[in-house]
Parts: sequence; structure tokens; C-alpha cells
Amino acid sequence: MVIIMNPDATASDIKGVIEVIQNAGLTAKVMEGAQQQIVGVIGDKTKLGSVAIDALPGVEQSVSISKSYKLVSREFHPQSSVIDVDGVSIGGDEFVVMAGPCAVESREQLFEAAEIAKKGGAQFLRGGAYKPRTSPYSFQGLEEEGLKYLAEAKERTGLRIVTEVTEVEAVEVVAEYADLLQIGARNMQNFRLLKEVGRCNKPVLLKRGLAATLNEWLNAAEYILNEGNPNVIFCERGIRSYETYTRNTLDLSAVAAVKHLSHLPIIVDPSHGTGKWRLVKPMALAAVATGADGIIMEMHPNPAKALSDGPQSLTPDNYYDLMKDVTKLAKFMKAENIQCVDLS
Amino acid sequence: MVIIMNPDATASDIKGVIEVIQNAGLTAKVMEGAQQQIVGVIGDKTKLGSVAIDALPGVEQSVSISKSYKLVSREFHPQSSVIDVDGVSIGGDEFVVMAGPCAVESREQLFEAAEIAKKGGAQFLRGGAYKPRTSPYSFQGLEEEGLKYLAEAKERTGLRIVTEVTEVEAVEVVAEYADLLQIGARNMQNFRLLKEVGRCNKPVLLKRGLAATLNEWLNAAEYILNEGNPNVIFCERGIRSYETYTRNTLDLSAVAAVKHLSHLPIIVDPSHGTGKWRLVKPMALAAVATGADGIIMEMHPNPAKALSDGPQSLTPDNYYDLMKDVTKLAKFMKAENIQCVDLS
Amino acid sequence: MVIIMNPDATASDIKGVIEVIQNAGLTAKVMEGAQQQIVGVIGDKTKLGSVAIDALPGVEQSVSISKSYKLVSREFHPQSSVIDVDGVSIGGDEFVVMAGPCAVESREQLFEAAEIAKKGGAQFLRGGAYKPRTSPYSFQGLEEEGLKYLAEAKERTGLRIVTEVTEVEAVEVVAEYADLLQIGARNMQNFRLLKEVGRCNKPVLLKRGLAATLNEWLNAAEYILNEGNPNVIFCERGIRSYETYTRNTLDLSAVAAVKHLSHLPIIVDPSHGTGKWRLVKPMALAAVATGADGIIMEMHPNPAKALSDGPQSLTPDNYYDLMKDVTKLAKFMKAENIQCVDLS
Amino acid sequence: MVIIMNPDATASDIKGVIEVIQNAGLTAKVMEGAQQQIVGVIGDKTKLGSVAIDALPGVEQSVSISKSYKLVSREFHPQSSVIDVDGVSIGGDEFVVMAGPCAVESREQLFEAAEIAKKGGAQFLRGGAYKPRTSPYSFQGLEEEGLKYLAEAKERTGLRIVTEVTEVEAVEVVAEYADLLQIGARNMQNFRLLKEVGRCNKPVLLKRGLAATLNEWLNAAEYILNEGNPNVIFCERGIRSYETYTRNTLDLSAVAAVKHLSHLPIIVDPSHGTGKWRLVKPMALAAVATGADGIIMEMHPNPAKALSDGPQSLTPDNYYDLMKDVTKLAKFMKAENIQCVDLS
Repeated sequence: MVIIMNPDATASDIKGVIEVIQNAGLTAKVMEGAQQQIVGVIGDKTKLGSVAIDALPGVEQSVSISKSYKLVSREFHPQSSVIDVDGVSIGGDEFVVMAGPCAVESREQLFEAAEIAKKGGAQFLRGGAYKPRTSPYSFQGLEEEGLKYLAEAKERTGLRIVTEVTEVEAVEVVAEYADLLQIGARNMQNFRLLKEVGRCNKPVLLKRGLAATLNEWLNAAEYILNEGNPNVIFCERGIRSYETYTRNTLDLSAVAAVKHLSHLPIIVDPSHGTGKWRLVKPMALAAVATGADGIIMEMHPNPAKALSDGPQSLTPDNYYDLMKDVTKLAKFMKAENIQCVDLS
Repeated sequence: MVIIMNPDATASDIKGVIEVIQNAGLTAKVMEGAQQQIVGVIGDKTKLGSVAIDALPGVEQSVSISKSYKLVSREFHPQSSVIDVDGVSIGGDEFVVMAGPCAVESREQLFEAAEIAKKGGAQFLRGGAYKPRTSPYSFQGLEEEGLKYLAEAKERTGLRIVTEVTEVEAVEVVAEYADLLQIGARNMQNFRLLKEVGRCNKPVLLKRGLAATLNEWLNAAEYILNEGNPNVIFCERGIRSYETYTRNTLDLSAVAAVKHLSHLPIIVDPSHGTGKWRLVKPMALAAVATGADGIIMEMHPNPAKALSDGPQSLTPDNYYDLMKDVTKLAKFMKAENIQCVDLS
Repeated sequence: MVIIMNPDATASDIKGVIEVIQNAGLTAKVMEGAQQQIVGVIGDKTKLGSVAIDALPGVEQSVSISKSYKLVSREFHPQSSVIDVDGVSIGGDEFVVMAGPCAVESREQLFEAAEIAKKGGAQFLRGGAYKPRTSPYSFQGLEEEGLKYLAEAKERTGLRIVTEVTEVEAVEVVAEYADLLQIGARNMQNFRLLKEVGRCNKPVLLKRGLAATLNEWLNAAEYILNEGNPNVIFCERGIRSYETYTRNTLDLSAVAAVKHLSHLPIIVDPSHGTGKWRLVKPMALAAVATGADGIIMEMHPNPAKALSDGPQSLTPDNYYDLMKDVTKLAKFMKAENIQCVDLS
Repeated sequence: MVIIMNPDATASDIKGVIEVIQNAGLTAKVMEGAQQQIVGVIGDKTKLGSVAIDALPGVEQSVSISKSYKLVSREFHPQSSVIDVDGVSIGGDEFVVMAGPCAVESREQLFEAAEIAKKGGAQFLRGGAYKPRTSPYSFQGLEEEGLKYLAEAKERTGLRIVTEVTEVEAVEVVAEYADLLQIGARNMQNFRLLKEVGRCNKPVLLKRGLAATLNEWLNAAEYILNEGNPNVIFCERGIRSYETYTRNTLDLSAVAAVKHLSHLPIIVDPSHGTGKWRLVKPMALAAVATGADGIIMEMHPNPAKALSDGPQSLTPDNYYDLMKDVTKLAKFMKAENIQCVDLS
């Protein structure tokens, strides 16, 4: 930590700051700047507790240098992690595709979607059984019934199941039916839920919060790893910006940034990331090119009848077209050994 | 709902849209625009389920007209609601002040803070026993022990207690000790938690999410009212913007906007809203002037030793100074009957 | 400047950094952190030119400590500046009001507006003769004809004139007719225009850019002062955020922040800041309470016929009502000597 | 235009709205909604001038349906435009690369950069001679001297020249030396400058404003086309969001969105878009995959000595590595005829 003093800080202000640091068992070093004095803090910062250095007299601001997450960081674990989800590897050589409807609406709809997903080449079937919805009057999902349909769909197609868990009480039942537990954007800082899936033996897909910084996102994953579950996959799904043409602003630079900062895999959700089906294919291709480990997207046998998120769902034909080109591109990237992220 | 067709939509596209509307038991009216055709939907839109009108062939976009929240809206309840919190009215004539430390750190710290809060004129003592923290390694709160100190502080001072509840499992115990249950920004769309406090008999302070729109915020309150708890107080606490000088951007226009759209009271949190103690007083005064029903702010016997959020906490002296002027201003606004919000 | 090295930076990396600093005639001091080394730079940072410290091998990031603006800063000029605009003081004891239509549309409209503005108690008449418009097909203003009407309106009412200048070529003619030259949000970083008004002998009203940080805004003012014109007044007019209910998000905390960082006056524009006439009065009152030196707002004899920005314009009756309460509040704040900003 | 009335609008309110529409020579059609009445406006909306429909009594909001830009729209010009820049086509089959230093610093630096750019395979040399800088004390560019070096570099290497023009007075001289005139982000709504380059016979590279919506950006291009210059190329360079890890948030979805809405080409700037050299390559690859017509990026013979924007500049080696893979990928996309954007 580096503490920057006000230009008009007094000698006694500086003395006060040094005392606080020393009382915490740390070492303080003072440096004379051109206009301001700077105090460096040497030692394990956590000893400071959260003493509010910024509020000490004469302090302009403090700059934290060390990262607050550890288990998640690439420094801690230099090799990229490859996560096994019921036999499918994420984070390795293969580009993984998860497709399916936003919500599980009925047995028929889901099975039809599963057949299409399978035929197009996806490895995972997605579909929400527990739906977090802005309005209490919107369709909230089929809950356990939906989970059962998902499990049946897996039996029929062999596709792995990824589905959202929105509450602590449901972790057990969702983990029973699903292969990969999704934590949605609205719950990225539902720390109680993070801890619960951290104690569960299923891998977790952690979506980025609506307005989460990379630092907050990495720390959210740290909550899960800290409880003993090392199998977290990040999912960039767009952030909230002033632009209203798209539902969210898909921050593809997060893919390379997360790969630089962390050893965990990351996939991209071009459906929520744009909210417009026309933009799903270009952003899916971009996700491949930028080095993502996979994509998750919405596809519906009949988007116009979807109970939620229709405008961003692909029709089966759009989905097949997308898969053809995504597959080609992913193969090419691998064959040519194009490295997007400098991990040196 | 109004559906805007593409300029190149065909007659069969329009026929398709009309069929979907009629199949849902609604009436469609077509209007010829200069460049585009428009289809109006007459009747109860919820009959549409969430059929994805936007994904129908030929549709450019649909514009939703009716609001999704009802119980929360001023149309539903034209009179402003006054909420009783253990004898203190919020939303009526009185400007209410809630003050105290960010976190309950110890019995001594809390009692000292309570005495100061009381002496300054606050009606409520705030203090977190369950702390949602970005990093799992930060201080997470004293939990039930903290709640007990809060209850003791109430006994000593008569101050009402407002404290955050971060998880479903804790609602019962927090409701036992606290007078007003706070839902924090990170949990504004933790719908399971909203439902739980909706079934509880204590009033709820609902903070605005980090990047929540007014519409999402009002709908979050609708979740609580819909479960049977009519006693919700909104709290504007700053939204996330690109500006980094302040911790958040305090959106004071939300006060008048919420009062226009809803009958429920709204208070302001200038501490989280700015993140800088220097800005707390000016924004507290602005909150009074803009017609807020109260403020909640952080004050600490010794901010430099605070275990969290020190930089935004007031010292006791700053707090007394603020209270002197806030009280004067609130009295003046009332005496002069200055009406900020046009409710006509 | 403080330079933070990567945890894995080598001794030769650090040597390289030190050499760059010393070659620029500055002093480098190395400090051992817990995980990382830190290099402090002592001396006048401008000697570094803009050598890209961040791109040197082994550097994680550099933190700039000294501010890039000088003449604008309160350190440079501790007393608050009071700016005389043709006999009206801004930044002193008086709360100044500027009112009028968004655009000068006709002689009659302007004179009517001027009479209303005067009657309500404003000291300034606003009205755009040069209008920056998103679309080239929108009304672009009456240009010099509009300026002449403004000058006439001044003769009739004594109101001072504030109007926008959008291009270098027009500075001379606008300065001839106006008392206060407005630089609009879209031109806040039109540096050529800033320099031009910096060489002009009229005071300047500098609106905050759509997405400008405080630092960028203060530096924009520095461009004007640096050319020799010390008379700059800031105007907070809302920033762009994700919220769409309001046209912009009025950042009232900027008032106290700017007063802390700079000696120059600051006023608030609640019309553009909210985009909704219903929110203008509450935000005008909040501006008074937060310590602003004045407000500028849109008022139109007949808002429904306004050629631009009607939805945010007040009717004459709304304007009178607002002025009655704003005046009362401003008097009260002064009489009670309520200090919003701690300048200690 | 569709006008949505308040639920409590009176018959006389609706009559008033209809009158305003009819007085403008347009047709009004009323539609009964479930809760609210809706008035459709039939005919050329521009006849309304900018009468402020939203401010009429009883109006809740108006929704504009027709787009304000025309010449720029794909409806107006269904074929994608291919723009010739001194013999290099942009918007056609070829993926175009522009590379070079942020600023022209010296003859030697520029020539060295030009050789590297050429060797790596770029078609254009970039380099700023007029630099818009936040602080008046930062390096402002070599101006005409820099332009001469650029022209010399073209003679030596054959690379086309793209460089920024920041002020009306410099358009003539920049157009004399450059092949492609860049309008920077800060000047995207400097309408006077847009008009000036619209009257110039050189193609224009129009960067997206820091916080510009797609609609504002397309309208900015309309200013240029409306003056007679049809040769505009868009450049996505990142938008301002709350995320601070990257300098901006590169909105790659804008590529496909702009191609859907407009016939004009669009390129991507991964250097400003991320601000971190490590992220330039992954985002350059993503730009290719998403269907962009090219990229513009910063490369410096010695980034650590760059006078501006060093942290986002590539070293020559990084640049060669990037070019190798970008070229491969662009060839592959073309050979496989991968269509990112559905223009049906």
C-alpha cells in the first residue's frame, strides 16, 4: 500500500500515519515527492484490518497494490486450469458450446431444443428452471419439474446440463440434476449463495454481474474456491452501459484480461451480451477469435413463442449456420496455434 | 403494447403478428405510418405470456406501455404512504435521520456511536452485523453478537435499529432484534430474499442496486409488497458510473422521480453515495431540499479505526455540525411548506 | 509518481526503470513492498515528457500523484473566485439564476421569455442562437439574428445574456452580443475552441462534457485560464449513465467536489440534468442546498411549441413557483450561514 | 411517431394533442389501450418541427419511430459501400491494417515506425500531428512539420497516411498531406468540423465519441454525407464504462450493428479500445472475426519512449506477431466465406 499525503499535510499528520502503520506491526517508509509526501507500507497489509487510512488527517488517498484474491490468481496457479464437467473438458484445447432455451417451458419444447442443440454440435444443453425475473408477475420457471426434464434430455441426447441456481435452498436439488451450476449475473455478489456452491461438488459457471468490475468478479470466484470448490468457469455476459441499442455491452476484452489475471477458464454469452439475435453470430465468432474457451447461447425451437428472452434467441436454422462457422473457426485457431493471450 | 414493423415488412408478416395477438385473446389494431406500419395491442398484455413479439418476422421493435409494477405505483395508491417503524413515522412530515458505524465492531464502539447518534438528534442507529464484502478475506461482521449489541444500544438510547440482512436464513434473527430490515444494493435483485422479507412483519429499507434502473428498483419493491408486506422504504445510495472521484454517483433526481411514480417513502445515503466524508454534508442538505424523507449515513467514533468504509464516515464533530444544519433546513422546508414534487 | 513493479519483475527491469527516471533528470527511490517493489519518482514529473513508464519491462502500473491542472486549483488560489459578469457577481454571496428558452426561435418568443424571466427574478436570460444538434436536419439556430434579439432583450429588461458559442469563427460575434459565453457539453474538449475563448475578454460558462471526469473538466478550464482568461464558471449539467428515465444523471456531488478542488464558481443545469420538467424544481432546490453558486434552466412561454428541448422546459407558472421557493431557500442558506463545503 | 397518453389524460388533453398534429398538416389516429390511449402520427414527422409533444398536457411520452439519418442508412443504400483511399479499398474483400505511433514525434521515429509498419504488412501509416490532449501542458503535436514527415514516409514506403484533424482551420493543410482524415472521439459532435470535412474531397475516418450512442454516431456521419462527401469510414474505439481495468470498453457488437444499420465500412481500434498492449492482439483477432473491415492500432519503435499513449502501443515484435495471425485469420474468413452479418 502506498499512502499519498496532502500537499499541506503537517509533520504531525505524517507522524500519525506512521504510528498507525507501526501499531499494526508493519513498516512505514516515507518518500519526499515534488509536491507531496508518500508513505509506503511494507508487510502483510491484512494486518491493518480495514483501518481507514484515507480518513487519517493529512491523507489524500491510499493506493492498494496487492490483489485481494489469491486462489483465483495466475500468480498462485501459473498453469491454466482445465475443468472436467462430467467428461467434457473446459479450458483445454476444445471450444465448448452450450445451447438451449432461456427457460425450460415444457417437456416437448425442451426435448425439441435438445435434439437441435445436439444436431448442431453443442456439448451442453442450457435451460433455466429457476428464473430470476425483474417483475414478480413474469414466468418464474418450472423449478424441480424443469430440472427433471433437463435430466431426461441428458439421457436422450448425452448433452451435459447447465442450469441456474438462484437460491441457497435449491443448490442441493439443482446439483442433483445438473452437471454445471450457473450463478447468474444478479447473484454474482450473493455471497451466501457463492459459499453454498463452494461447498458443493459440482463445477460452477459464474456469470459476471451487471455492473461488476473484473476485480469484483475475480473476488466472487475467490469466495467459491475458498470454500473448497476449485472448479469455477467465468462467463462474460455483457455489462451495463449507456448504450441502449444492445441489451448489454459485451466486454470481450474481459476474456483476455481474465486469462491474464486468473488460471480459470472463461466462456462468453453472446445472447445476453447483445440481446439481439442478429448480433449473436458475429459475437460468437469474435469470442472464438479472442481466445474464449466456449460460448453459451440461447436457441429456441420457435423463438416467437419463447416465454422469455425471445428477441435474443436463435432459430434452429440460425443456430446451425452459426455452429458451422464457429466450429470451422475454432478448428482453424487450434490448427494454426493462434495464441491470443500472452501468458509470459 | 405498440409493435413497430420494419419498413420492408410484408403483408404476411403483419398477418402473422396479428394472429399471435388474437390467439392470445387480445385485439390488434394496425396503423399506417409514414415509413412503417404500427400494430397496437389492446387488452391485458399479460395474456401474451412473454411471447417474443420482437422475434416475429418483420418486427423492428415492440414498446411496452403499461408498467409491470402495480402495488408500488402511485396510480394504485395515490396518497403518499407513511410507514411506522416502532413509533417513528417515515414518509410523513418529519425528516428522519439514521446514523451509526458501517459495521458493528464491538460493544464499546457501538455504544459510543449510539450515544453520539442520539446526542446529534438521529432517530435511528445503523450498524452492520452481516456485512457483504467484495473479498472473502475482509471482515464479515459479528452476526448475531452484533445484533445483540444493537438491541442493547436501543435499550440504552431509545434509538430504533436499522441493520442489513444478507441471507434468507438470517431474516428471522435479524427481524427479532431490528426495527427496520435493510436489503443492501448487492441483494436488490436477490428475489428469494425479497420474498422472505415480504413475508416478515418488519418494515424494509430497500437500497437501490449498484446499476439498477428505477423500473427494476420499483419492481424489486413489488416483490416485497406482493408477499404481503406493504412497508417498504426506498434508499437511493448512488449508482455506478464512469466517474471515479466519487465511489458512486448519487442520483438525487431519483428522489422526486420515485415520489412521482410510487407512494412509498424514500431516503438518501450520502455516505455510500459519495464515498468521501467531505461530500456527505452537502449531499445530506441536498437530500433535504429535494424532498427526501430522511437520510442514512455513516458516523464513527473514530473513523480512522473503522473496520470498513472509514473514508466515508463522519467524525462525531462533523456529524454534529451536519445535524445542526440538516435540522434547521428540514424545519425551514416544512415551515415554508416548500413542495418539491408535483403530485398533480 | 509512484511506479508499481510486477511481482516477478527482475533486478534488471528495476534498473531499467531507474535509468529512464534518472535520464530525465529526476530522482528514483526504490521501496520493497510485501509482494512487489515500488519506485518513487522525485522531482518535476513534466521532465519525463510522456515517457510511457507503464510500458517498460516489469512495470505493472504507474500512479500519477500530482494534478495536471494548476491555475484552476484551489492550492494555487486558496480564495474562492468571484466573477463579475457585467455587474453581476457569480461565486459570491448571491445565488444567480439564468433562465430562458433552449433556443431563440423568434423575436416575439424571446421577448416574452425575457419578460417572464425578469418578472420571476432571474439575473440572466439564456437562449441558444447557435444550436449543436444530433441530426443535421434539426433546427440549428438563428445564429447572428438570434444574437441581435438577445441584445435587444437585454436592453429591454436589463437581464445579462448567456448564450452558447459552438465554433471558433463565431467567438468574436457572440462575444460582441453576449455577457457570458457558454461552451456546451459536446465541446468541452474542443481544445481549439477553449483556447479561442481563453483569448477573449468575456467570462466563460464551461459545461461538463457528456461523459467527462472531474479531472478532464478541470483540465478543460485550465486551457482557458492558460490563455489568459481567468473568468470561468463551471456548469454541472448531468452525465451519461445507464439510467434512461432521466435524460442524464445530474451529479450534484460535483458541486462540492469542484469547490474543494478549484477556486472557480459552479452552477447547475437541472433542465438538461434531468430532461423532465417535473424534476427541475427539486433539483434546483437541491442545487441551492448543496452550495452551488446558481442555476441555469430552460423556461419557455409555451413549452409545447418549443423548437427544441420542450419536455424539459418549465411553463411560466412552474417557473414562478420554482423561483419563489429557490429564492426563499437561497436567502435562508445565507442568513443561517450554512456552509456546505469544508474548505479547511 | 407514437404518442402515449397518461392513464388519467382527459378527453380535452387528447383533443389538444390531435390539434397540434393536424395543425402541422399531419394525420392523427387514436387507439384505445388497456390502461392508456395512444395517438399515432401519420405523415412526414419533420413537419412537426420540434414541437415538444412530450410537454403537452396529458402526454406521458412519445416514441419516435423513423430514423433521423438517411444518407447513411442501409435502407437508402442497400449495397455495402467500398471506399477508395488512394487506391486502397476499404469495405470490400480486403482486411485493411493501419499502424503507427500515437504521435509523430520526430522524423527518425516516424520513418522507423513506417518501415516496421510496412514490413509487417499494413497498408496505412497512422501518426498524430495534431494531438487533442486532456491537459494543456501535454505534448500537442508537431502540427504541419509532422504532416510533412508523414508525407515523406508515404514517399519512402508507399503506405497511405491517416492522421487526425482537430480544427476547422487545419482541414485544408491536413487534406493536402493525408489520404484519410481522422475525426477523433472528442470531436465526434464538433458539428462545424464535421461540415468542414464534409466539403473536403478526402475520405474521413469517423471515430465513435467517448460516450456516443450508435444513433448519435450515425447522425454525425450524416453531417458529413449531407455536405457532399460520401466517403466515411466508422471506427469503433471503445466507449466509457464503469470498468477501469481497461482504458475504454471496446464495443465489438457495434461492428455488426453498424453494418446492419448502415452501408458504410467500419474498422476497429483495439489500442484505444483497451489501453493495454496485452489486449491489442486478442481484440484485433476478434475484430477480424466479427466482420470488421480493418483495424487501426498503435505501434511504436520503442513504446517506453513514446510521448503519448505508450502503454497501449505494441513493440515491433508484438506487432509482427499480431500481423502474422491477423493476416492468416482474415484470409481464412474470406476463403471460407464466413458471413458475420446477416444483411437479409
